[in-house]
Amino acid sequence: MTITLPGPTLGVVGGGQLGRMIGEAVAPLGVDVVVLDPTPDCPASPVVSDQIVGGFDDADAIHELASRVDALTFEIELADPDLLAEAAAEHDVPVHPDPDTLRTIQDKLVQKEALVDAGIPVPEFVAVATAEGLERVVEEYGGVMLKAREGGYDGRGNVPVRDPADAADALDEIGGAAMAEELLDFEREIAVMGLRGADGETRTYPVTETIHREEILRESVAPARTDDATVAEAESVARDVLDALDGRGVFGIELFETREGDVLVNEIAPRPHNSGHWTIEGARTSQFENHVRAVLGWPLGPTDLVAPGVTANVLGNVEETQPATLRGVEEVLAAPDADFHWYGKNDARPLRKMGHLTATDRTADADRDTLLSRVRDLRDALTFRDA
Amino acid sequence: MTITLPGPTLGVVGGGQLGRMIGEAVAPLGVDVVVLDPTPDCPASPVVSDQIVGGFDDADAIHELASRVDALTFEIELADPDLLAEAAAEHDVPVHPDPDTLRTIQDKLVQKEALVDAGIPVPEFVAVATAEGLERVVEEYGGVMLKAREGGYDGRGNVPVRDPADAADALDEIGGAAMAEELLDFEREIAVMGLRGADGETRTYPVTETIHREEILRESVAPARTDDATVAEAESVARDVLDALDGRGVFGIELFETREGDVLVNEIAPRPHNSGHWTIEGARTSQFENHVRAVLGWPLGPTDLVAPGVTANVLGNVEETQPATLRGVEEVLAAPDADFHWYGKNDARPLRKMGHLTATDRTADADRDTLLSRVRDLRDALTFRDA
Repeated sequence: MTITLPGPTLGVVGGGQLGRMIGEAVAPLGVDVVVLDPTPDCPASPVVSDQIVGGFDDADAIHELASRVDALTFEIELADPDLLAEAAAEHDVPVHPDPDTLRTIQDKLVQKEALVDAGIPVPEFVAVATAEGLERVVEEYGGVMLKAREGGYDGRGNVPVRDPADAADALDEIGGAAMAEELLDFEREIAVMGLRGADGETRTYPVTETIHREEILRESVAPARTDDATVAEAESVARDVLDALDGRGVFGIELFETREGDVLVNEIAPRPHNSGHWTIEGARTSQFENHVRAVLGWPLGPTDLVAPGVTANVLGNVEETQPATLRGVEEVLAAPDADFHWYGKNDARPLRKMGHLTATDRTADADRDTLLSRVRDLRDALTFRDA
Repeated sequence: MTITLPGPTLGVVGGGQLGRMIGEAVAPLGVDVVVLDPTPDCPASPVVSDQIVGGFDDADAIHELASRVDALTFEIELADPDLLAEAAAEHDVPVHPDPDTLRTIQDKLVQKEALVDAGIPVPEFVAVATAEGLERVVEEYGGVMLKAREGGYDGRGNVPVRDPADAADALDEIGGAAMAEELLDFEREIAVMGLRGADGETRTYPVTETIHREEILRESVAPARTDDATVAEAESVARDVLDALDGRGVFGIELFETREGDVLVNEIAPRPHNSGHWTIEGARTSQFENHVRAVLGWPLGPTDLVAPGVTANVLGNVEETQPATLRGVEEVLAAPDADFHWYGKNDARPLRKMGHLTATDRTADADRDTLLSRVRDLRDALTFRDA
């Protein structure tokens, strides 16, 4: 293909931290970014060309976005696939990943069924509609992760249920259509950022280890501290997932490594993913830049590791919503081995993702355990609480 | 010091490519940037929070900028030091580097005299006012570089004069107050990006080799291909220069390495400089991020080399001003070892700086000659001319 600059304008549905980091990544390449987000002054707003203030299901806003750009993508699964497809068709702009893929992924039950159809290994799962049904499944599986079929994120919509007596409360907490997955006694959680570009070209980033607490990602270690066979299996599963999906872009593929050494797919995100934030410093091309390269049909950048890196999320350590004032930043700024990323959110909420930091070690004897301790210490010195 | 986020807002006088790269560099740190530039939709505009459209000598605009920010800096020597100082004082915000330093540097004759006063080695120089005077100096020095005392940049305002008969024409071309410097038969040109932060802390980046043609920087090679003694001398001279200047920030210090191995100061820029663009990929912290850290009084980032890097400028290869359409970008995007930076200028003009690319080699046997050939080949495949 022939590429000329000034570059294309990219429309992004969603202007949260992922939209912000997309904007930061592609400004040097001359890609103008316009985001659509319901929150005025959303995180992406100060670093992109323009924001259209509108809801993810606001047809007029999505048509306005499509009319102003050369390509469309989204950074949040709440994007409406029908509206995206319709606006893209009417304004004759490509949209990636394919809205059909988004539709499949949005419903976790449909997503899992599609993976099974493609022969991809997943945990046992079943749809549940009633407390009685859930009780039976909890007994059969010996514990389940109850998941909202739609709309969950950052731990919301995921409820572990180990005792059948908790079934009714768990369903109430989910509050909508639900599915139950066997609660795996896994060895560790891992993830692969997969990438599909023009002409079906796929690439994967080095396998990442992800550390969750209360269903929320806390740290990512790259490369994962696991054995070569598991790494090879994770890459193989990730490539199968990419082959089963339509459209270009980055896909965050979350996996379980079982105690038996099997690799099962947990969930897929059709966009850059928190477990790939380390790629900004630790990989030759970040997941954000490569997402845009893929969406635009540009040549993909190398996904090679530059240096082992560990990312720690900075979450809102507050009891209730309050204006965000993060203290202790001077220590992170003074750290020669850490890079800080602030998401520009005005309010801190309990466990809300407010930023992250990544520690990298470019020396030959980089040790990931040490990096993990280091980045945790730096992160734990940050606080939104009053002094 | 205690640093909290959301971060400060930084006001930058000038919104060209340096302002753009400042904005790109500090968005992750949560620093909001507002630029002041006379050109609507200036290069920095799409990547920063806001642009005030106004001239560099527009007092109202500079006061508006000062009223909206927590600190002031500038990315162009055309900034007005008196207005900056006055607006900073009235709105009680710091301005760095010190406007007095800007005033000294703006006049190349005053700059050179200040360097001599500080005991820093410079080429022989003298003010010239008439063609007769210039003729005598050309004869005495055996050739001079005639320089406009104020307002020159990117080769404009620099005229080499080897024949006394050319004196009158050269003075006409300068068109204003001029100085003449001995035309050195140097071994190579080199540069040091120097950095002064809070409490007088100074740091320097690895010495860069700069390759000019028609007085315009074409390529920068880092580290410079010179001997250890010259590197040590260049660092020593750079530290002396930093000690002689007031205010915090990055200073681009351009040097001559003479055939005798001496290091003389050519010119100083009180801001990030083209010869330091390689630091974006090649150093642990870019000159842009460190400029802002210094201006804000934040801890400075490490200036260590990450990988040898060579930057090539992409200049307007056109005969006259025309809308900018750069062709051949696909080859640069496909290159795994090169990073492209587009400045977002709407018009290509002859020899105007439109972007740059940096090739880096992270392998142990990185060879700078090979990198230089490589980046030249990539750059030379780009063109603003019609196919």
